[in-house]
Amino acid sequence: MLEVLAFATPNSLKVPIALEEMGLDYRLVPVNLRQGEQKTEAFRAINPNAKVPVLIDRFELGDIDVVLSESAAILVYLAEKSGQLLPADPVHRSKVFEQLFFHASGLSPAFGQAFVVAMQSSPQPEAKTRALAEVDRVLGVLDHRLEHHPYVAGDTYSIADIAHFGWVWRHQAIGATLDKFPFVTRWHAELSARPAVVAAIAKTMALAQ
Amino acid sequence: MLEVLAFATPNSLKVPIALEEMGLDYRLVPVNLRQGEQKTEAFRAINPNAKVPVLIDRFELGDIDVVLSESAAILVYLAEKSGQLLPADPVHRSKVFEQLFFHASGLSPAFGQAFVVAMQSSPQPEAKTRALAEVDRVLGVLDHRLEHHPYVAGDTYSIADIAHFGWVWRHQAIGATLDKFPFVTRWHAELSARPAVVAAIAKTMALAQ
Repeated sequence: MLEVLAFATPNSLKVPIALEEMGLDYRLVPVNLRQGEQKTEAFRAINPNAKVPVLIDRFELGDIDVVLSESAAILVYLAEKSGQLLPADPVHRSKVFEQLFFHASGLSPAFGQAFVVAMQSSPQPEAKTRALAEVDRVLGVLDHRLEHHPYVAGDTYSIADIAHFGWVWRHQAIGATLDKFPFVTRWHAELSARPAVVAAIAKTMALAQ
Repeated sequence: MLEVLAFATPNSLKVPIALEEMGLDYRLVPVNLRQGEQKTEAFRAINPNAKVPVLIDRFELGDIDVVLSESAAILVYLAEKSGQLLPADPVHRSKVFEQLFFHASGLSPAFGQAFVVAMQSSPQPEAKTRALAEVDRVLGVLDHRLEHHPYVAGDTYSIADIAHFGWVWRHQAIGATLDKFPFVTRWHAELSARPAVVAAIAKTMALAQ
């Protein structure tokens, strides 16, 4: 059984989306970030970086064989375990990794920083403008990609789409709009309607209730 | 022949280190960031995200088959192409990816932000303190890892070590010290002495001369 330590966050959401798409059994274990549970000694023993999500995979009943942090690393692990959503062909495969690392180093920090600013009780106007400018820049890069391909890594849906979706899905929470990005808008609407995505959003949001 | 569009930067350095370690033939093609060459229309046609490094792999003479950005995605591509520095065993493999994504989403942005602050002509003291505090936090996470393992992903040297080394090597440029991190210090000294690392640093630094 796969266990996912998670909360109602963009990074957490990626893992249940992948698991639903792959048809793997799993159990969500809530880590309440509002109560700082990710900073407890018990949680830091699992992930010294003090962040969700974390995947626990028990190969045999009782034995813990894999304890894995970093949402994108979890996506790669699940894709290789299931043989799904990560092409074997080196050219297409390389584009999935390119997008996963563009997500981790570009899109995710941009959205994360804008979220931090948006959550402040009285954010500085310049800080908000600067944060949203970087969000627009990375959305522009993604839009360019989606103008030429149906999915972010090419012709087929992959774990790279799931990674980007986790944050793009929350664009309204950071005060961003997709209006200027028609290809991101098309892709976002398509993914939002996938049954696996709908199911994963419902289960992930329920962690905060 | 592999071509690497690069400059004398921490992210660029990772790629020649990997190529030297793997014994692959390559050619470094300078992209002068000081003159803004990464923002030209010609370069953006290659990488719309306007960043180095970029790998070009021609499977047959003349044909360009792979054009890949994101230094860590290039490391994964080269590891899978050469069958080196990325274990096949799923447990150890997952730890390489965990460290690569911790690098992309945690260590690299922390060092990058501290570098931006350090390069300002008159940085705000609070900005510098905040940036170096995050550098210390991620170095602490890395130190914890290296206390229990000789290399960042476990018992064997991997592309994850190369990714982290790119930035940790430049700690003095951002005003950070490794003094508080004995295990990072041990690892950094060992990697610095590897012939492939020495050769890659010399070739990468020469791009700025």
